Amino acid sequence: MSDRRPTYYEYLDTKRLLAEYPLDFVGRYRVMSGEELRAIQNERFLRCVDTAWRTPFYRRIWGAAGIERRDIRSLDDLPSLPTYDKNDLMASVERHPPFGDYSTLVDTPPEHIPPVVLHTTSGTTGRPQPLLFGPWSREVQNLLVGRMYQAQGVDHTDIVHSVYGHGLVNGGHYLREAVTKFTTALFLSAGTGNETRSERQVEVMHEFGVTTLIGFSDYLRKLAQTASEKGLVAGRDLAVRRIIAHFGAEDRRPIAEAWGSTPEAPVETYDWYGVGDTGCIAGEIPGSDGMMIWEDAHHVEILDIETALPVAAGDRGDLVVTCLFKDDCYPIIRFNTHDVFAMRPGTASNGLPFRRLSGFLGRSDNMVKLKGINVFPHAFGGILDGLGDPDLTGEFVCVLTNSSSGGESLEVQVEHRTVALADASAYEAMFAQRLGVRVGVTLVEPGATSPLTEVERRQKPVRLIDRRG
Amino acid sequence: MSDRRPTYYEYLDTKRLLAEYPLDFVGRYRVMSGEELRAIQNERFLRCVDTAWRTPFYRRIWGAAGIERRDIRSLDDLPSLPTYDKNDLMASVERHPPFGDYSTLVDTPPEHIPPVVLHTTSGTTGRPQPLLFGPWSREVQNLLVGRMYQAQGVDHTDIVHSVYGHGLVNGGHYLREAVTKFTTALFLSAGTGNETRSERQVEVMHEFGVTTLIGFSDYLRKLAQTASEKGLVAGRDLAVRRIIAHFGAEDRRPIAEAWGSTPEAPVETYDWYGVGDTGCIAGEIPGSDGMMIWEDAHHVEILDIETALPVAAGDRGDLVVTCLFKDDCYPIIRFNTHDVFAMRPGTASNGLPFRRLSGFLGRSDNMVKLKGINVFPHAFGGILDGLGDPDLTGEFVCVLTNSSSGGESLEVQVEHRTVALADASAYEAMFAQRLGVRVGVTLVEPGATSPLTEVERRQKPVRLIDRRG
Repeated sequence: MSDRRPTYYEYLDTKRLLAEYPLDFVGRYRVMSGEELRAIQNERFLRCVDTAWRTPFYRRIWGAAGIERRDIRSLDDLPSLPTYDKNDLMASVERHPPFGDYSTLVDTPPEHIPPVVLHTTSGTTGRPQPLLFGPWSREVQNLLVGRMYQAQGVDHTDIVHSVYGHGLVNGGHYLREAVTKFTTALFLSAGTGNETRSERQVEVMHEFGVTTLIGFSDYLRKLAQTASEKGLVAGRDLAVRRIIAHFGAEDRRPIAEAWGSTPEAPVETYDWYGVGDTGCIAGEIPGSDGMMIWEDAHHVEILDIETALPVAAGDRGDLVVTCLFKDDCYPIIRFNTHDVFAMRPGTASNGLPFRRLSGFLGRSDNMVKLKGINVFPHAFGGILDGLGDPDLTGEFVCVLTNSSSGGESLEVQVEHRTVALADASAYEAMFAQRLGVRVGVTLVEPGATSPLTEVERRQKPVRLIDRRG
Repeated sequence: MSDRRPTYYEYLDTKRLLAEYPLDFVGRYRVMSGEELRAIQNERFLRCVDTAWRTPFYRRIWGAAGIERRDIRSLDDLPSLPTYDKNDLMASVERHPPFGDYSTLVDTPPEHIPPVVLHTTSGTTGRPQPLLFGPWSREVQNLLVGRMYQAQGVDHTDIVHSVYGHGLVNGGHYLREAVTKFTTALFLSAGTGNETRSERQVEVMHEFGVTTLIGFSDYLRKLAQTASEKGLVAGRDLAVRRIIAHFGAEDRRPIAEAWGSTPEAPVETYDWYGVGDTGCIAGEIPGSDGMMIWEDAHHVEILDIETALPVAAGDRGDLVVTCLFKDDCYPIIRFNTHDVFAMRPGTASNGLPFRRLSGFLGRSDNMVKLKGINVFPHAFGGILDGLGDPDLTGEFVCVLTNSSSGGESLEVQVEHRTVALADASAYEAMFAQRLGVRVGVTLVEPGATSPLTEVERRQKPVRLIDRRG
């Protein structure tokens, strides 16, 4: 016992956790004034700044901008701090392998160094990055999901089935902790099709009476197909009443109907957003009219993709986040996610004082500029879904090439059930009208895009292939 | 918020947990008298009996034996209670799908019903069985592993790499909780080769400087081979100093050497034992001279496989366990694991008052009776390892058939690197001398047994194929 460092529950005060972040947050924040909320945010923010100032990473990037700890007195000073992104974190890992220096605490006595939970990102957009959590920051982010699920109606009568993957990747472990620790539902950690094969997943849903599905909508859509192939009838053999996933601009009616939604017994759908570095930032709950930002835990800015200046509510831009609860390990202060959103104007009908986001609009580092117009490959999914065209599978992939005229051209391969009879030019005309710029369309057989999108294997399919020279 | 049931941290008292089961258990129990330990055991046992009496399952099996709650006054009454096994649990699931009635609490107000963590067994020996844990029983079993790891020397300088699988199965989640919550080491939840492919696993060990491997020894042996094929040299590129696995009678020198063990810098190996229903029951720590039973948390009996009567220390029998900490959900009172062990006579040199087990000897439901002699297929591994024969890969499988003479005969397929030059009859003679009965031996090429053992896919390979009519 020479190890003076605390273990998880020696470090974590669960009573303080539940007091600072009450599970009944709807009840608490509905009656809170804007000033009171701002005071809480400021106090939490400054705790995070203190921790950040103990990491070499923040001292370096703030120092390069001429900023000292004493220059940061409240959230009002936030715009003066530099933003950073995943490239800066990966450069930190390169310089200080294997963990980087963004979670390394200096000038800290051993008994105040938190034990660390380590995972990696899935590496969807490059090499996996280490994610490090202290007990407090881990549990707050778990709680933010759990209380959201409770607000969505999840209770002890629910059985929640997760298709988020495990292994080194954070996702599956994160959602398992969120549901088991901060709801009273039963939780099935099925994982990806690699962990529990798809046929077995739908059997499990049937045997255990699963009521709530959570995960990425692409795989959940595929599982509905698997269930149907096995003769399991949604509504009769499957009791799904709620899907909590990442929808963005996707039309949710097809997936809800595939899981048995009817006008009499609708399957509810809820969108939410977060990244591995931040945890759950925002989500839909009844009366939120968009994805409500958990502003007791996150401060969100929407910044112009090119100028990095704040945009007006309703305009799209990069989501830059400051986590107000990450004060034990790996603070997040002005992290540019490069995920594109717009803030929704006005206030929510549920009476909470929190701002709301539009659905996910795309990634700015996947953004394609065609004749001066910004095009997000991700957005084609929403447009195709919106057509309600039964010949489309919903699967597609964009291929970017150098055009013969010197610019760039984008071709969208769209899966179509009757390729021989269909007319690609009609889809081209429709896209031109929607986007204001011309893209090429090639209709391909169902399944033909999957070698490029890797939809069977990845949780987030690839939607843009860059073939410029 | 109509849900009156508590969530995990509303139910769990972490301070009481660390007080009742101190992480420095070596320091605590070394100075404790036998009477004091017995009093703690009795108090904990009676709490579990109270909970068991609230489940339909125990009322049924105890009722069938004519036992009422008031008949059980202390651990002295334990031998009067019936034992049960996995078949009884599966029958309970059949009658009361999907969870059985062994963890269903009756006569309990909602605010005292614990939230439940649900997993399944891996289904190695049949259909997966639901495993249910309350916060208290879950965390105590996590703690029992964590404090054992600490006693084995794991501290904040360690990076622990786990190859236990995730998905619905308990194992990977259990060990992840144990290390992250009850040690100060960093933890890598690599999982099976399905979750993180073997080449990536050894890269991760290299990149992150892994010091401790945990998992099933079959797959850890395979990973040493993968590392070597990738040109990673143990001791130079890999810093493994400790392997904590399930060894049983296996000779540990080959696996330790494959991970770089030398006389100057030995790789330490520790054996431990537990099943999904019970958590960690026993393990090796310095000075334990065998696997020490955590007798503050488990009461263990070794019973004759046929008569179910207690055997003398040193004699082998079925391990029957009573968990002293499972008083919130799914109590375990006289559960026959059908895992065969012997109790080691005498006391441990580390001064702890706990009894010790031999290594795992086999499963009694896999036991084969040949001419009146009990043969455990698992035991062939230990015998083959003990030969130190470089021509053997260590892989084997037993095939049981009806013999022409009316009895049964056992054939052992043994992987051998130079089949053409070798003499199976020499191995037959060796086995006959060791076991006291004749078995057939067929030498096969390296890898030839894997379609039967499924060693690439399963965490616990199949060692007995029953081909009796």
